[in-house]
Amino acid sequence: MAVLCLAAGSAFAQQQLFQNNNVKSPEVNPDGSVTFRLVAPKAVKVTVSGDFLTAIPEGATDATTTAEMVEKDGVWEYTTTPLPGELYSYSFNVDGVRMLDPSNVYMNRDIATYTNIVLVTRQKDDPGYYYSANDVPHGSVAKVWYSSPTLGMTRRMTVYTPAGYYDAGNKTKYPVLYVCHGTGGDENAWSELGRAAQILDNLIAEGKAKPMIVVMPNGNVSCEAAPGEWSAGQYVPAMGSSNQFGPGKATIPEAFPDVMKYIESNYRVLKGAANTGICGLSMGGGHTFQTTNMYPGKFGYVGIFSGAISIPNSERGKSFSENLAANTEYAGKIRSVFAAKPQLYYIAMGKTDFLYASTEQYRGWLDAQGYKYEYRETPGGHIWRNWRLYLTEFAQKVFK
Amino acid sequence: MAVLCLAAGSAFAQQQLFQNNNVKSPEVNPDGSVTFRLVAPKAVKVTVSGDFLTAIPEGATDATTTAEMVEKDGVWEYTTTPLPGELYSYSFNVDGVRMLDPSNVYMNRDIATYTNIVLVTRQKDDPGYYYSANDVPHGSVAKVWYSSPTLGMTRRMTVYTPAGYYDAGNKTKYPVLYVCHGTGGDENAWSELGRAAQILDNLIAEGKAKPMIVVMPNGNVSCEAAPGEWSAGQYVPAMGSSNQFGPGKATIPEAFPDVMKYIESNYRVLKGAANTGICGLSMGGGHTFQTTNMYPGKFGYVGIFSGAISIPNSERGKSFSENLAANTEYAGKIRSVFAAKPQLYYIAMGKTDFLYASTEQYRGWLDAQGYKYEYRETPGGHIWRNWRLYLTEFAQKVFK
Repeated sequence: MAVLCLAAGSAFAQQQLFQNNNVKSPEVNPDGSVTFRLVAPKAVKVTVSGDFLTAIPEGATDATTTAEMVEKDGVWEYTTTPLPGELYSYSFNVDGVRMLDPSNVYMNRDIATYTNIVLVTRQKDDPGYYYSANDVPHGSVAKVWYSSPTLGMTRRMTVYTPAGYYDAGNKTKYPVLYVCHGTGGDENAWSELGRAAQILDNLIAEGKAKPMIVVMPNGNVSCEAAPGEWSAGQYVPAMGSSNQFGPGKATIPEAFPDVMKYIESNYRVLKGAANTGICGLSMGGGHTFQTTNMYPGKFGYVGIFSGAISIPNSERGKSFSENLAANTEYAGKIRSVFAAKPQLYYIAMGKTDFLYASTEQYRGWLDAQGYKYEYRETPGGHIWRNWRLYLTEFAQKVFK
Repeated sequence: MAVLCLAAGSAFAQQQLFQNNNVKSPEVNPDGSVTFRLVAPKAVKVTVSGDFLTAIPEGATDATTTAEMVEKDGVWEYTTTPLPGELYSYSFNVDGVRMLDPSNVYMNRDIATYTNIVLVTRQKDDPGYYYSANDVPHGSVAKVWYSSPTLGMTRRMTVYTPAGYYDAGNKTKYPVLYVCHGTGGDENAWSELGRAAQILDNLIAEGKAKPMIVVMPNGNVSCEAAPGEWSAGQYVPAMGSSNQFGPGKATIPEAFPDVMKYIESNYRVLKGAANTGICGLSMGGGHTFQTTNMYPGKFGYVGIFSGAISIPNSERGKSFSENLAANTEYAGKIRSVFAAKPQLYYIAMGKTDFLYASTEQYRGWLDAQGYKYEYRETPGGHIWRNWRLYLTEFAQKVFK
């Protein structure tokens, strides 16, 4: 008996050092259901919250659902129904305290909140397949610092170069897609939450997307970089936290040429509208809208995902339509964008997105002018599941 | 009253969405003490565990110490004594369940375990200063894929290029330092746990280190990349988990030229021993030892940190000294390394490291041969606090 105890003690010590758990969680079962497990012998109530209960595409919402886990021998467990192939997020709650799954090393930070993730692939061509690191050639992802004289600082951005870019003797030039994040995000958002590198690797490997450079700048004018990556304290991100550093010397559209100059100077880039695209989610959709309006004819491919679009000097209480009608100068800029005949103007929106109305009104105006655009509407609201899907679709349409 | 409740409900919802806590934790106080806080009204016992209680340099050990937190109004709190400037790690335990601090967005993964981190800087030149992102020019950090014909796969590595590398018109060539991780680690370990980019940025900005390229390859022969970054499932790392993918087609030293070929082909590199360094921790110290022995004269700067060094075909139960004495062919390789007169051969070890004996015996042999090396011994054992310190010191000694 003493020997047994000693052995158990030793195993425990090793486990503490090298692996912090002894249950498998999450476990993706053969039928596509997922089992979550947590060791918590003293807990009274344990729940799991995630987006997996509302994941059926037809009825998808952005609601997080909470399910009670059931305890046996100190291990709490919950199994979902079979899920469509997707990337799911979840966390546990133990007696009122939210916590991450200690058995799962995969997680994402969205603004200030970490959430565990689990990838389910039921069949090839699932979204879950495109978000996974599959056995295909991989592009490189770099965090680079560039000078932005317009904003008066050096700033950090994420640059994806496709597989083969650095092969010996490769002199190929590539088109460039600029991808903008939303409020509370930073230059890490699209590569981590957005799975941009995995999406591009997989699409390019199948020939569904052209090999391209994808540039993910930081869209907070007064921040040099993501939290912890620059000198302004170890600031904790929150919605709009970048504002704590002041309004910035210029706007993102005004400073956009600094980003493009760095990319065009340091990478093998195909220039011109036919080789230049821009897209973004929420605030980044707004940045896409404003930047393309500021530089008509510069971007041949435009993607506005769940866009926080607005007309400069808008009057509060008036609708997007009313403000657009009142600002003929700005409407003229939009006219110039369409006069330059962009190869693709893509607008995507979730059915239940709180920003639905302004985009609906903008579409109405575009329709009235006879301007061509492609519209994609999906279930759910202002959520990353939609933005990953929009990028997956948009990336297949550009530079073709 | 109804209005108040509504307001509170709304504030709560916003907080849930945008920030998952309402306490500040950790808080670095003006005297260098750190206060940890956790909201857990239903908890019976909450503790904080970290390396902050044994952090006094003279008496440092690698023990993690646990302190009971005290509850008031549902918020548990603990304040340390004033701490030396360092990077500290910690986690909470709520009624027997280990959890991360939901108020702290800074964390590191070490093998399979996440731990929150907090940086304390008491004065400039603290280790904590060198590990922080300060207001200095920043280098770029890239995750690149290269072909390794020797191992029969494409593999991922991390490459740091110093600030200014990508400046327009910069044609400067730079020396290269290869930095190897330990067992259970991967190509992310030195840039994340090791703070390599911050250390180099700060040292270079002060002129204490030469601008250099720092290359952090993956040292697991049968892995393409870190967990989640390649196609072999979403494997959960554990000590030696890379072995589950088989023994590999070759060894790390045999495949090292593939790494160097990619770097020398794709970056502006100064070649030759005087411009080429290699170092590593634990298993990576072993890789450094083996690689330099396989290619005498190739590396002018060698750093073995807490090295897991061993002689090929060692007999079990025999000491490092005995095995070295028995293998005259291998001893000859080491002799060739010193015959080529490396500019610096640096050995570092923690006083209480479990690998102390083999390095002590190796030093004895080097002394007996009259081979010059620099030896650094620090308090504590086989821990990242030592490895960050060794890199900080070693980086100041190379290429000078």
